Amino acid sequence: MPSLRVALCQLDLTVGALDDNVDAIAAAHARAEAAGADVALFPELAISGYPPEDLLLKPGFVEDQTEALERLATRIEGHCVAVVGWVEGARHLGADPHDRHDGPWNAAAVLHGGRLVGSYRKQALPNYAVFDEQRYFDAGDGAQPFFSIAGVTCAVTVCEDVWVDDGPAAHACASGAQIVLNVNASPFHSGKQEVRESMLRRRVAECGAPIAYVNLVSGQDDLVFDGGSVVLDADGSIVSRLPRFVEAETVVDVAVADGTGLPSRTVIEVTDAPAARPDAPPVTVDEVLDGPAEVWEALVLGVRDYTRKNGFREVTLGLSGGVDSALVAAIAADALGPAAVHAVLMPSRYSSDHSVSDAEQLSINLGIDARTIPIEAAHHAFLDMLAPSFEGLDEDLTEENLQSRIRGVTLMALSNKFGWLVLTTGNKSETAVGYSTLYGDTAGGLAVIKDVPKLLVYELCRWRNRRDGAPVIPESILTKPPSAELRPDQHDQQSLPPYEVLDPLIEAYVDGDLTSEELIAAGHDPELVVRIASLVDLAEYKRRQSPPGIRISQKAFGRDRRLPITNRYRPKRPMDPGGAS
Amino acid sequence: MPSLRVALCQLDLTVGALDDNVDAIAAAHARAEAAGADVALFPELAISGYPPEDLLLKPGFVEDQTEALERLATRIEGHCVAVVGWVEGARHLGADPHDRHDGPWNAAAVLHGGRLVGSYRKQALPNYAVFDEQRYFDAGDGAQPFFSIAGVTCAVTVCEDVWVDDGPAAHACASGAQIVLNVNASPFHSGKQEVRESMLRRRVAECGAPIAYVNLVSGQDDLVFDGGSVVLDADGSIVSRLPRFVEAETVVDVAVADGTGLPSRTVIEVTDAPAARPDAPPVTVDEVLDGPAEVWEALVLGVRDYTRKNGFREVTLGLSGGVDSALVAAIAADALGPAAVHAVLMPSRYSSDHSVSDAEQLSINLGIDARTIPIEAAHHAFLDMLAPSFEGLDEDLTEENLQSRIRGVTLMALSNKFGWLVLTTGNKSETAVGYSTLYGDTAGGLAVIKDVPKLLVYELCRWRNRRDGAPVIPESILTKPPSAELRPDQHDQQSLPPYEVLDPLIEAYVDGDLTSEELIAAGHDPELVVRIASLVDLAEYKRRQSPPGIRISQKAFGRDRRLPITNRYRPKRPMDPGGAS
Repeated sequence: MPSLRVALCQLDLTVGALDDNVDAIAAAHARAEAAGADVALFPELAISGYPPEDLLLKPGFVEDQTEALERLATRIEGHCVAVVGWVEGARHLGADPHDRHDGPWNAAAVLHGGRLVGSYRKQALPNYAVFDEQRYFDAGDGAQPFFSIAGVTCAVTVCEDVWVDDGPAAHACASGAQIVLNVNASPFHSGKQEVRESMLRRRVAECGAPIAYVNLVSGQDDLVFDGGSVVLDADGSIVSRLPRFVEAETVVDVAVADGTGLPSRTVIEVTDAPAARPDAPPVTVDEVLDGPAEVWEALVLGVRDYTRKNGFREVTLGLSGGVDSALVAAIAADALGPAAVHAVLMPSRYSSDHSVSDAEQLSINLGIDARTIPIEAAHHAFLDMLAPSFEGLDEDLTEENLQSRIRGVTLMALSNKFGWLVLTTGNKSETAVGYSTLYGDTAGGLAVIKDVPKLLVYELCRWRNRRDGAPVIPESILTKPPSAELRPDQHDQQSLPPYEVLDPLIEAYVDGDLTSEELIAAGHDPELVVRIASLVDLAEYKRRQSPPGIRISQKAFGRDRRLPITNRYRPKRPMDPGGAS
Repeated sequence: MPSLRVALCQLDLTVGALDDNVDAIAAAHARAEAAGADVALFPELAISGYPPEDLLLKPGFVEDQTEALERLATRIEGHCVAVVGWVEGARHLGADPHDRHDGPWNAAAVLHGGRLVGSYRKQALPNYAVFDEQRYFDAGDGAQPFFSIAGVTCAVTVCEDVWVDDGPAAHACASGAQIVLNVNASPFHSGKQEVRESMLRRRVAECGAPIAYVNLVSGQDDLVFDGGSVVLDADGSIVSRLPRFVEAETVVDVAVADGTGLPSRTVIEVTDAPAARPDAPPVTVDEVLDGPAEVWEALVLGVRDYTRKNGFREVTLGLSGGVDSALVAAIAADALGPAAVHAVLMPSRYSSDHSVSDAEQLSINLGIDARTIPIEAAHHAFLDMLAPSFEGLDEDLTEENLQSRIRGVTLMALSNKFGWLVLTTGNKSETAVGYSTLYGDTAGGLAVIKDVPKLLVYELCRWRNRRDGAPVIPESILTKPPSAELRPDQHDQQSLPPYEVLDPLIEAYVDGDLTSEELIAAGHDPELVVRIASLVDLAEYKRRQSPPGIRISQKAFGRDRRLPITNRYRPKRPMDPGGAS
């Protein structure tokens, strides 16, 4: 049975870093060449990084990216072909967007012998969820050529192309392709690897041919690309799986069926089979992470890449003694090393002793820097400044928000002075219902756990405490009732239902896009549904001004969920009259 | 020559306010019926408001919207047909977005006799600039039926359909339509009415038939829909033009050519011509606003609708004595009435006497409420709190930002206590280069002049001073050098080039999407280009957390310009080596 030696090059590339990306690709290609690979696969849009977003609307950027690809091509020498995601062609938008030329295309360049041998244009352009590819790209057609590599007829495809039933992959194999090479920038959500491999098994069954699937690994703003590159043979078995959330490379000999007569499409002849191959290295089949371990690694990669790719080395955060900031501190320590994490305790007149001692103990356990800056002086000053305006009025949320904002100002001052990135600590449950202070605890550069519901916050902390056999997060942080400590004897559950009730409701309303009527019909408490749904809707203006957060679900707040701020569609009970909206 | 009596119903509708929108449409239809109209045209997506964004991903919302349309239909009685934008059909996204049914469509319902007679599905779905319609809608096909209204064969079209050369409008007229009815939600940018009418004249020439064009009028988050509904007769003359930025209605008798044989498409017979019509009211042909007058009205509508539709009645802002806050105060006073505007003077140890007196004089001229809250107490408190951390370090931007953030906290406290919306006062030039303090002067709900470059800020102030013959903005505010007053003797031009140089550079880099190399090739100073382009790129994280601003240009910061924060594509001079990116 003939075979193709495929190198999967799962690189961490950076949006806009054209030359660094080219260097990384060329180096990995040289390693694949040394290992006797026939073809090395690189991620989708590897030259520009993914997603480049509106950089693609700058014709000059697309041109620079094209020149970078041309420079890369001159470095692809030897037997091994490189398949590299790039932007092919430029769209030249004039003043009138209706006057459009064709292209550009989200494409995969086939490089060999120091030149661009051909390019495949992605046919299926996702324009849902976090994707906006129809904003930028034209779709390739369904009759594009195959590439003969080491004598094997290869169908090159890009990402979404293989997700479509009866789509580009199936059509290619029905037209005589012996293997599908698929280059990806496939973002993470919890459980994604199982979804991905289940889809690939279905596709292999449909195609009757093996699929080699390479994915990007990268944190890019709110998105994490999780790697997990795999090769499936023609019977759907995983013959190689790379680890996730880290750069990795492997070389796999993939068995292909004998070519059955002439393919019914044009074939670009690239290389013949080598006379002999060096021994293949042992095959990698990494275990699939799941549950809290998977989410933990995603958050760690998200923090590390956002911090470093944006030119920061160190981070700061407010440590309240509560569970959310404890989790963020632990993730940051894993991502950047404890020496790079600067915790700030900012007790107020309402802070409890145990908050301070718990935060101190956590800092010691993690080995991070910690300092204490009491906020009383500024708290007192603001109350004085505002006294003439507030005379005769009761205290309310205003005074609570004030304390949170003083902490935000303090962290930002440290950030400005020392160049530390501020990490915010709000979880998805709080972010959903707006249980946060805009410009207060939401102030910072990265909202690490913005997509992590409160119950999962606890689960991640317990998982982290079990991981090394040495609990770093003090047990008292995990057992005391959650509180913002912005007034005497405050507890979350005075304002919110228990998280065991709240989290499933948020998941159904936000992630599931159900209406309040549908939630009530599903058995949720009507009063609670209307109250929580209203809170979620009304907090849209806060979310719009909050920093990006790392996406771990299938619907994170951010580019995944684009709701208007001005929105008078209101949650209602089924029996509400239709007259008022 | 036969004619059709068309009512243009240019309403201010609200996203999500299904019942209010239905009531407004039914009332306007009743007025059109009373005026003897054969057909009344309402804006695109009139039932849901435009753009509903991800509300469209909630099947329950689309269903509620459908029921609202059905309730409207029962209220459309008499001779006059109603053409109303709506969402037809539901997309039922399951867990797997690849498993999609057809629809929904961005459609125009044709209502008569208490029922839905037919529906036209938009063919051209814009997915560029501020538009994401391919995220939500499937496209209609090109062979949809015509509607015979008062015996005239009418082609219904939706917005973008008429912008396409050799597109749906031309095809319809070539197939026998006698008139094109076009319902729109067409957002404003400066000079938009001329662009719109020039396009419509081109379309009429291509079609050889009249076009009746109705537009939404509305402020919706960052977008303003400016009305300016028009009817062009078959020779391209404007026979009616409604005013812009306000709700308006008119009835026009539009001459149509005799039907030339049978149309080559299905025709749905709706109504016959009436035996007699009441006299038509006088025709409205409003003047086209342009220059500062047009921008002013857009900003006023944007402020008024954002404030009221989000449930606020009053606003607050910091009045520095500078030109930006003076302009915002004047716009707010026009939009909401002076009694609804609460100015706050927040002098620091670095504020000049003239700043305070200029701000006071402005408040008196505008008749707005003003109070003074010196920030010294909080300023002093923060410097004390931070002293142990900052010991031995020089003062820098940290201390400047601190003052700005204290002001932000103060305004937010007033907002929280009194329910006032905070207006921010940063202009487009500052927003572009990041000459602002995140959580400081950027803190607020609406960034009124975020899309107004500094030179236009001055022009608008001067225009406003001329408008009523009584200058409300003190001349000294317009003549003194701009300063943030965050350190002694500070002036903008210590950090930035003169705005006469900066503004054109920003326009070319941001609005024009040129690269630094292209700007240098066009003759801009190389050092300056690299410095300013770098500032613009690096300020992306600030803009991402700033409030929405009212779009007046063809590329505003916001949904118009979606750049990654993590972005290592760097401005470079043409002679830069390619090695470092």
